[in-house]
Amino acid sequence: MAASAGPEIERLISLLAKLPGLGPRSARRAALALLKKREQLLVPLAASLAETAAKVTSCSVCGAPDTRDPCSICSNSARDNTLICVVEEAGALWAMERSGAFRGKYHVLGGLLSALDGVGPDALRVAELVGRVRGGEAKEVVLALPATVDGQTTAHYIAERLAGTGVEITSLARGVPVGGELDWLDDGTIIQAMRQRRPT
Amino acid sequence: MAASAGPEIERLISLLAKLPGLGPRSARRAALALLKKREQLLVPLAASLAETAAKVTSCSVCGAPDTRDPCSICSNSARDNTLICVVEEAGALWAMERSGAFRGKYHVLGGLLSALDGVGPDALRVAELVGRVRGGEAKEVVLALPATVDGQTTAHYIAERLAGTGVEITSLARGVPVGGELDWLDDGTIIQAMRQRRPT
Repeated sequence: MAASAGPEIERLISLLAKLPGLGPRSARRAALALLKKREQLLVPLAASLAETAAKVTSCSVCGAPDTRDPCSICSNSARDNTLICVVEEAGALWAMERSGAFRGKYHVLGGLLSALDGVGPDALRVAELVGRVRGGEAKEVVLALPATVDGQTTAHYIAERLAGTGVEITSLARGVPVGGELDWLDDGTIIQAMRQRRPT
Repeated sequence: MAASAGPEIERLISLLAKLPGLGPRSARRAALALLKKREQLLVPLAASLAETAAKVTSCSVCGAPDTRDPCSICSNSARDNTLICVVEEAGALWAMERSGAFRGKYHVLGGLLSALDGVGPDALRVAELVGRVRGGEAKEVVLALPATVDGQTTAHYIAERLAGTGVEITSLARGVPVGGELDWLDDGTIIQAMRQRRPT
């Protein structure tokens, strides 16, 4: 960075560059946009981040970020207490909520087991999940984890830890995405879709 | 966005999505990263944006963002007052400073003339440039504007406005970028590089 921009702007750029999706170059462009749109963007974003930092905490039950604890989903009595959907991160929870496909409760692991990245079971909220299942009304745990090596390792580990609790453990169906053309799908998905074919 | 994330997070995501380089999906990822790295990223970024909003202004001479007015370049007496480099935005000024190729002063236009986007001369800091040239010691104005239709239209317009002031008007050389392979260059650049060829 040019020294001429001043230490404040340099610091802003280096912080923006840490966001996923932004590198050093796009962080500079973002800083420039912020400086140009002071009242429409810079000031509101500063306020929004400060408010988020001050108000948003992790739900002590499911681990999702929210301003309330327990979060709005955990404290919603209209949602099914007998179903727990296990997700890697809040992003997956938000996607599931947008789809409207699930009306139970969630459990956010906070990551996946990864030998490469040195993430062990203690770094994830697995013990909390086992505690919830033992102490609660859950009848089914839906593992909505990614179809990757780490995702499936984590799913197996959780299934093992939940063995003996009597809870039913399920996973999201694998298959052809809606609107997906076979031409563009990877072999793994096609194989799974064929194996799990069902009468129409 | 899921209503479950709370209005604070929704607002943060919609503001992040306005940054260049981030769309709705990557803004969600960025918000998630901010929530995960509360102390390392969320809190410092909030503070940095607030500090930038409070301290950084536009230099009243050249238009560059800085905490000082006149900015650190305009108030630097070691820099050549007889040279003014005209750039579109502060990003170009920073790039020029990083290169160390220029030791004069700058003038930030704040954009380019654009019939399509409805940007006329009054939206740019052209009158200020003419005033600086008439009232100052400038002997040469270097137009460091992009080699696009809008950039060249703006360059022609500025050259017209400065006609009669006696100042010399120059432009950055066009040619093959350092490390650039001819294979990957557009025809326009190759044509310019050939026309402006020089003895080695």
